[in-house]
Amino acid sequence: MCTADPCDTLLIMPTTRLDLGRIRAARPDIDPVFRDTPLYECDPLGRALGCTVSVKLETANPVRSFKGRGTELVASLLAGQGGTAAVCASAGNLGQALAWSGGRRGLDVTVVASRRAPATKLDRIRALGAELELVDGDFEAARERAGQIARQRGIRLVEDSLDLETCEGAATIGLELANGTPAFDAVLIALGGGALATGVGHALKLLAPDVEVICVQPAGAPAMTRSWHERRIVTTASTDTIADGVAGRFPIPAVLDDLLTVADDAVLVTEASIVAGMRLLLEHAGLVVEPSAALGVAAVLENRDRFAGRHVATVICGSNVDLDAYHRWIGT
Amino acid sequence: MCTADPCDTLLIMPTTRLDLGRIRAARPDIDPVFRDTPLYECDPLGRALGCTVSVKLETANPVRSFKGRGTELVASLLAGQGGTAAVCASAGNLGQALAWSGGRRGLDVTVVASRRAPATKLDRIRALGAELELVDGDFEAARERAGQIARQRGIRLVEDSLDLETCEGAATIGLELANGTPAFDAVLIALGGGALATGVGHALKLLAPDVEVICVQPAGAPAMTRSWHERRIVTTASTDTIADGVAGRFPIPAVLDDLLTVADDAVLVTEASIVAGMRLLLEHAGLVVEPSAALGVAAVLENRDRFAGRHVATVICGSNVDLDAYHRWIGT
Repeated sequence: MCTADPCDTLLIMPTTRLDLGRIRAARPDIDPVFRDTPLYECDPLGRALGCTVSVKLETANPVRSFKGRGTELVASLLAGQGGTAAVCASAGNLGQALAWSGGRRGLDVTVVASRRAPATKLDRIRALGAELELVDGDFEAARERAGQIARQRGIRLVEDSLDLETCEGAATIGLELANGTPAFDAVLIALGGGALATGVGHALKLLAPDVEVICVQPAGAPAMTRSWHERRIVTTASTDTIADGVAGRFPIPAVLDDLLTVADDAVLVTEASIVAGMRLLLEHAGLVVEPSAALGVAAVLENRDRFAGRHVATVICGSNVDLDAYHRWIGT
Repeated sequence: MCTADPCDTLLIMPTTRLDLGRIRAARPDIDPVFRDTPLYECDPLGRALGCTVSVKLETANPVRSFKGRGTELVASLLAGQGGTAAVCASAGNLGQALAWSGGRRGLDVTVVASRRAPATKLDRIRALGAELELVDGDFEAARERAGQIARQRGIRLVEDSLDLETCEGAATIGLELANGTPAFDAVLIALGGGALATGVGHALKLLAPDVEVICVQPAGAPAMTRSWHERRIVTTASTDTIADGVAGRFPIPAVLDDLLTVADDAVLVTEASIVAGMRLLLEHAGLVVEPSAALGVAAVLENRDRFAGRHVATVICGSNVDLDAYHRWIGT
């Protein structure tokens, strides 16, 4: 006799909002400067980590992060619909990307960020021509204020990870990873709001289902990882990590559902491992990265046995880092 | 009455060894990991320099320099002809690239380098499986010894800049730059032996003739630049520059002839400007580069008026740098 409850089945295989056909169709709407980014095996880094490591470099573009893939979709759709303005909350990278993509399409872009966000990210948002509003509090306070502005002005609110364009833009990275030869054994993806992980994971699960999709989050900002493990939303009262790009506290239910369909694992790493990862990326790959971009390497450092001899790929998702802080962290 | 001597005409319009059809045909022989590298406008760097700056990033690949484009051609042709071994002299980057390209095609690769070459470059040549022989003296001493080895063993000598594959491999960068939109006003290219400058310059002059091709060499290693200005080979007794990748003393006549057909100018820059250029590339582009890769930025720093308001592209040709030296130079 079958005792399975239909609800259990739904929990085990939730539906997803993402669509591979739409992701493929989205590519032409993304400026080539964000597409087909370098993907290469970094032998010295692999030697240091005891496995084969390939990096997918998302920093060699005008906004130094992967976020342009999503904002290109947001801005091209919005401009196509006659929209003239958009607002987003940002830890710093989404704001730069939306300022870049919106600016090129004549959109007025407003970015709300925490006063505590890295100065270098805030400066570049302004330099790209966006209106920047700073709030006390953290990223979640910025999210609240961005919603207010959107309602007051009647303009488009761009919500990272909730808005499908942000996930499906990121998913184009997954298309490119799935074309990688030889196939990877595992792909390590920074986990924050979830756009990157759900997007890349979705494309991989459909096109290269044998690749293990592993999300990595700082132990100091574990809300989405805990939610994934408990299969329900878990929030935290605060965050404590240098990885400012992934430091949310309130996971979005729809994004968690998407993540449950594609992630094979979600792990937490310490601040010390993140710093060690940044240092290894500098020493062995010549890459200056922001803390979020070192999460994949940190995960290997914390569990070398799991990855020994395997071929892992990690997405280097951003390099917008305050250099003074960077040097202080890695001790140069 | 015309007083021009036919020899003068030949001097003014020398022939070139490079061929655009062959360069285009070469692309498929180059592993995709070296092709179609990022090309993007770097707004913060442009603001710092008072012009529009695009970077062509040749460091996001397994050997962290552009040299793989040429060694892919060398190794695929040699392997196709049944060759089993090759030797080259290298300041460090060609050796890594030949070790990578040769190693993947079953070739035995020997690299001769100066004992003074950066340890990080020498370590990576060994790690890539090449036999490394160190010589006292500079790069020119390594060239002599590599020739000896080739004769003794009866194996292929790979001579950077003299061998057409090294120039035409580099020229594929020029194909990609010529496709850049909007077109650049000037392209700034590091000048050493000349493979990069003649290759990129050749493609640009044929495909985008309005782009000014400007070669940049350290004042401490000026042999090829002086030769270009005097239209005859000028050698120097020594070199004195941190830009180890471009520190030759004996320009190759055939390469000078090629360079005379494509370069609009060749300029020398100080060590201080090279260091300032490296610092700007770190601060405003997030790029750790070796000194040779900062020559273009150094040239803008030394003549801001010349470039004010123009759109320049510069090839970031390598990032194999000893980090201790790097931090000492840029003062972090």
